This record gives sequence, C-alpha cells and structure tokens, in this order.
Amino acid sequence: MSGIHFNKVAVIGVGLIGGSLAIELRARSMAGTIVGIGRGMANLEDAAKLGVVDSFTRDVAEGVDGADLVVVAVPVMKSKDVVAAAAPNLSQGCIVTDVGSVKAAVIEDIEPLMPQGVSFVPGHPIAGTEHSGAGAAFAGLFKGRRCVLTPTASTDAAALETIRKMWEAVGSDVTIMDACSHDRVFAAVSHLPHVIAYSLVNTVAGMDGNGTDALGYSAGGFRDFTRIASSSPEMWADICAMNRDALTEAIEVFEKVLAGLKRGVKAGDIEGLKAEFTRAKRLRDSLANGGNTGEGE
Amino acid sequence: MSGIHFNKVAVIGVGLIGGSLAIELRARSMAGTIVGIGRGMANLEDAAKLGVVDSFTRDVAEGVDGADLVVVAVPVMKSKDVVAAAAPNLSQGCIVTDVGSVKAAVIEDIEPLMPQGVSFVPGHPIAGTEHSGAGAAFAGLFKGRRCVLTPTASTDAAALETIRKMWEAVGSDVTIMDACSHDRVFAAVSHLPHVIAYSLVNTVAGMDGNGTDALGYSAGGFRDFTRIASSSPEMWADICAMNRDALTEAIEVFEKVLAGLKRGVKAGDIEGLKAEFTRAKRLRDSLANGGNTGEGE
Repeated sequence: MSGIHFNKVAVIGVGLIGGSLAIELRARSMAGTIVGIGRGMANLEDAAKLGVVDSFTRDVAEGVDGADLVVVAVPVMKSKDVVAAAAPNLSQGCIVTDVGSVKAAVIEDIEPLMPQGVSFVPGHPIAGTEHSGAGAAFAGLFKGRRCVLTPTASTDAAALETIRKMWEAVGSDVTIMDACSHDRVFAAVSHLPHVIAYSLVNTVAGMDGNGTDALGYSAGGFRDFTRIASSSPEMWADICAMNRDALTEAIEVFEKVLAGLKRGVKAGDIEGLKAEFTRAKRLRDSLANGGNTGEGE
Repeated sequence: MSGIHFNKVAVIGVGLIGGSLAIELRARSMAGTIVGIGRGMANLEDAAKLGVVDSFTRDVAEGVDGADLVVVAVPVMKSKDVVAAAAPNLSQGCIVTDVGSVKAAVIEDIEPLMPQGVSFVPGHPIAGTEHSGAGAAFAGLFKGRRCVLTPTASTDAAALETIRKMWEAVGSDVTIMDACSHDRVFAAVSHLPHVIAYSLVNTVAGMDGNGTDALGYSAGGFRDFTRIASSSPEMWADICAMNRDALTEAIEVFEKVLAGLKRGVKAGDIEGLKAEFTRAKRLRDSLANGGNTGEGE
C-alpha cells in the first residue's frame, strides 16, 4: 500500500501514458473517481468503455473542478493551453503534475499559471510503446521504468513526495533532478537519436533522385536503426522545438564526434577508427543488460 | 536443381558466411568435396566436427590446389593477402568469388592477382547475424536475402552466370550492378549508419566526464538505435577504410541534412521540422513490410 489516495483525479489527455496511469491508480484503489479530459470524442468514449476513466468531458475547466490530482498528459506544446483553461477551476490543495518529455520549457510555460494553493510537480515517466490512444493503455506500462521528477524552487515538498510515492506505487523507479539536467540528458539519449534517424533516412532518400533504389538494399540493421524515424512527426517536432537549446548543443557535440570519424575514414586510419569504435562498443555493450528496458521519449 | 556442381570447393575463411555457403552447397549436392582454409585451428576443427567442411588446412596454397571454386570469405582487408597466397596454385578454369561488403577496393586489390585462365566474380551476399565463426553458420542464412554481384570489364560471362546460379540455388535474390554503385549504396544504407551509431554512443559517453549517468537514462529506443555499435570494431574499421571515398561522401551528405534540421531546431521551426520528419517517416514506413529482412553489412 502506498498510502496515497486521491478523491478525484482529472487526466488531461487520455492517451497511452495518461490512460495507463489512470488504469494503475484505479487498480490500486488510489483514486475515488477518474475523469478523462480530451478533445477527441472517439478516444474519450473508448476510454470510458474500456473502464480507463469513469466519466469524460471536453471541457477542461469542468473536468478539473474539485480534483485533488490533475495529470497533464498532452503533447508538450499543448500543456500551456490546457493548464490555462484549467487554472481558474483548480481547487485549493490540488496537485498538478505532467508527463512531458521536455521539462524546462514546460515549467516555464505552466508553472506561472498555477493559482495560489495549487502545487505543480513536473514529471517525466520514461515509458511508451509505438502505439497511442486510450486503447493502447495498459497496466504494467510503468513497471521497472524510470520516472524523472524535476522540482523547481517553488515546488511544494509534500506534493513532490506524494507524486514520488504515486509513481513508485505503480512500479516506477523515481529519480529527482533539476529540469536543465533532465533536458540535457534526454536531448542526448532520446531527442538527438530521433533527429539523427530522421536525417539518415532523408540522406538515403536524397540519393539518386528519390533514394528508393538505395533503400531497397537496406537490411535489418538499417531497419532497426531507423525504426524511431517512424515516430510521430508532430510530437517530435514539438519536443525538438521545446528543447531547442539542449538539443542544439547535443547536435553540435555529435557533429564534432562525427567529423572526427570522418577524418579517420578519409585518411583510412584503421587504428584510429578501431579505437573509437571499440570505445563505443564497450559502452554500448555495458547497456545490453541494464535495468531500464522501456521505450519512451 | 541448379545444374551447378563443383568438384572441389575451397572456402577461405570458414565463418558465418563462408560456413553457411559450404553447408548449403553440400546440402544441395553442389559440391564434391569442401576444404576449409583459415588461420584459427579451433574454428577449423569446429567446422570439420560440425560437417561444415570435409577437411581443412591453414595453408592457403595447399587448400586451393585443384579447386574449381574458391570462395574468399575473409575480412575485406585480408582478401589481398589470401588471394596472393592462393594465386600460384589456382587451377585453370577455377572460379574465384568473394563475399566482401566493399567492392571497388577489393577488386582493385585482388583482380590483378588472378592468373590467366582463372575467373574472378566479385560478390556481396547481404546476410549476417550478430554471431560469427563456423559454429554460427546455418542453412537458410541466404534465403530471401539479396546478393549483389559486381562484375568488372574483365569478368568472364560464363563464370558470372555460374555464380549467379549458385546464389540463386541457395535462395538469394541476385542483383548485378557495378562496383561503384554498390559501394555508394552500401556506404549510405550500411556503413554510414554504423559510423553514426558509434558516433552517437561516443557523444553520449562524452557528457559529464564519462556519460555513464546519461546512458543510464537511455531507453529501448536508444538501445535499438545503437545496437549496431556493438558490431566488431575490427571488421568495421576495415570496411570504413576500404570504402573511404563513398563513405566520406555519404557522411558529408548526412552532415548537410543534419545541419538543416539543426537550423530548424535552433529556430524552433515546428512546421519545417514536421515536414522533414514526415518525409522521413513516409520513407521509413514504406520499408516496414519490404522483402529484404536480412541483417548484414
């Protein structure tokens, strides 16, 4: 037992993450009633039919009314608008938390909107699959996955503790760090790989007019490597723009490393290349049996 | 029935590719006797014990004596030395073929070494797994995989036809192209992704001193994306150096594409990023159900 209980939970954005959290909170009797809030009627109806939420509304202010927990689980670019719509109706003592994969920009967008007496706890569960929508939500999504919380100078300590316990109760391994460190780390291990994957596919596509010929020779390695280029362009354009500073910096570091290897290739410096490849292989192999096997952004 | 039969096949390098081809040739009664040639005694003994080869030797000249087919299946950098050692003992009418993933440089290295009356057919079966050695060889490795043959101006037409039929008999889908086109295509779809994967891991590793912290936050996407950074540093240093011109060119095209995305990120140009990501996603999705599912270099 986590000892955590909310009377009314409002989940804004009943997708894979928001929906899975709702399922977990209900399964563990951590929520009295759960209201789903969203824009798409079909997805909200699905969520209710599947028992992910008890009721739903497209009206943010109505949905959050009386809630003691509000989970903002919309694409990062949309956080500001939904929180602005919710703010006038947020109850005293309510905790607002989010699940965005960019933290500094989201905090800058929404923390100033919180009314007096409402606590905001910025969060990022590192979980996800290739599917989306309430229908993709499932219990167990967060089990063994990391969840990063990035409190600010004004984050209430008790609210942070409540949200930490909530994520631990659903199986997550919670880490607390500052938003800037979070954004730098995820720029490198998540946002940069997506930008690279999109770039690589477009590089090959640019060959011989349209690249279809070259792509026809791609094998399993290329497919695995570029799988993340199948991710949602909308979501990733938002994430990249929201984390622009840390991501630009990560791209620049990568450019330097790649330029070094290019010099080695050009010079046919086998020993130099082998040393760099070996360094990468050792590090990559050390991940193979690591604890965190989740997807996520 | 392929109608192809060799009295004596010499396989130089009884690893995954050479060993699997030997298994297939025997299973289809396409070879009288098969001799394995290599440097490592343990691997050769394994190959004989597993029935991959009938006999073995560490002496290249002795092994190829009397062979009507010689398969060069050693790392690309080693091709020149083994062919130089084999050349004096190659029989009239013998066909020499190779399986290297770089073609122009290998051709330049070994074609001039062929004695009069010996035909060389450069080849590259697009197959492989993460395992290596004779023990990893298996029937079916080439089934449904592409095999590229890159004849030169001096390649004998009948020998080319024989090698084409041999690969088709073991289940490959054979394509014929010139060596330069081959090297450009594989620089883009195979060698470049490896260089990028190694660079990405080293970029993350370079953060915060040793990057262990950042790597600890990497999730499934990063692992899939960097799996190829676990490939053999020796083999890939060789391949990159052997295909230096085409690979340098591919890296430079990639650098330009990435620089374009970096500008979009820096400017927060969501629409521009979305357009580029969408272009990549469409192309990547078109591969998902493609015919060629093999690994390989």
